Amino acid sequence: MLLMQEELNTLNETLQEMGALVAQSIHRSVMSLVEKNEDYAHQVLRDESRINQLEMQIDDLATTLIARQTPVASDMRFVVAAIKINTDLERMGDMAVGIVERSLAAMRQPELPLEVGFTEIGNLVESMVLTSLDAFVKRDAQLARTVLAADDAVDKLRNSITRQMIEVMKLDPVMVERALDYILIARRLERIADHATNVAEDVIFLVKGIDVRHRSLAE
Amino acid sequence: MLLMQEELNTLNETLQEMGALVAQSIHRSVMSLVEKNEDYAHQVLRDESRINQLEMQIDDLATTLIARQTPVASDMRFVVAAIKINTDLERMGDMAVGIVERSLAAMRQPELPLEVGFTEIGNLVESMVLTSLDAFVKRDAQLARTVLAADDAVDKLRNSITRQMIEVMKLDPVMVERALDYILIARRLERIADHATNVAEDVIFLVKGIDVRHRSLAE
Repeated sequence: MLLMQEELNTLNETLQEMGALVAQSIHRSVMSLVEKNEDYAHQVLRDESRINQLEMQIDDLATTLIARQTPVASDMRFVVAAIKINTDLERMGDMAVGIVERSLAAMRQPELPLEVGFTEIGNLVESMVLTSLDAFVKRDAQLARTVLAADDAVDKLRNSITRQMIEVMKLDPVMVERALDYILIARRLERIADHATNVAEDVIFLVKGIDVRHRSLAE
Repeated sequence: MLLMQEELNTLNETLQEMGALVAQSIHRSVMSLVEKNEDYAHQVLRDESRINQLEMQIDDLATTLIARQTPVASDMRFVVAAIKINTDLERMGDMAVGIVERSLAAMRQPELPLEVGFTEIGNLVESMVLTSLDAFVKRDAQLARTVLAADDAVDKLRNSITRQMIEVMKLDPVMVERALDYILIARRLERIADHATNVAEDVIFLVKGIDVRHRSLAE
């Protein structure tokens, strides 16, 4: 029979592998967009099934571990956090796929007459994802809190992109599809940021044993 | 010390309370939209904090139960399913809030020159949510499978709404905001359907012990 520590390590490592792969897909989805690069887009589509596989594997490791080892206290919190983080990572992966699908569609539409500013929101979202994963690896609640603080900036950038695209659509009907693609891409980036926030909240719960969801930062 | 069966019952009942409240919010969000009814919208906004409270309470019940009672086999599957279903229900509640925010915004925009067809997609999505919850209450995997089968129809209705709204935006720049609101509402309904699908998959896992995610229905 495997030792509890061995099973915890396997779960931890598999979750980190999943995190690294999802972060890579997010990076490539942003690059496919800002550099209009089809290769990056196709790599994201290719890696989707591996991410789905890892999601099922992690759930399986977590449930088997609980059933066999009956962890308590902080070990139990870790397994519950792993189940939740796993779900958020898989959905981030789905968003990356959604971004490249839209980004491939946008490449086929006429060029917009302005810079949309995806580099800025893309960098910010990527940094939230990497920081939330880093906070998980280091079990660092302080670091996790910096992720929660960044969420408002993403919302602002997303709103600014939406407003610009509405103006574009009003000025030129030919641009409607491309502008809509960009609005939807910005929303997917915002949803990735929301999932990174969920991961950060789970890290705080894991380290501190407190639930910070649905509470303001000031509390 | 509480008996395991008592704790399992409490978890089950709280999850059903959460499900009923979320289903009600979804119903009201659809009604606020098709009947342009502000009262329904405000009720959804009011119930959001109760839903958030229930989410934290259910996670707490589940983790305490695991720590105190060390459930195995089907009891353990039930607790893991409860944690996952809880997350999906809370996010459906978020989507209902998102729908009424957009629906209140749309009420302030000029009327569209056509019927958008939200009654049909709204009814279908509501029925998926209610069926997934019913399948959970009855532990009925067969019933859960009917939810998975309905997901494609929702995607088709959402695509049809998006296509109609793109035409509206191209024909009349004054309609851009309202048409965009409707595109985003249709996407939120689709996401509620996705969450109902997740719940149905968790019910199948709970009853049969098999994981049907990322597999086609034919398998």
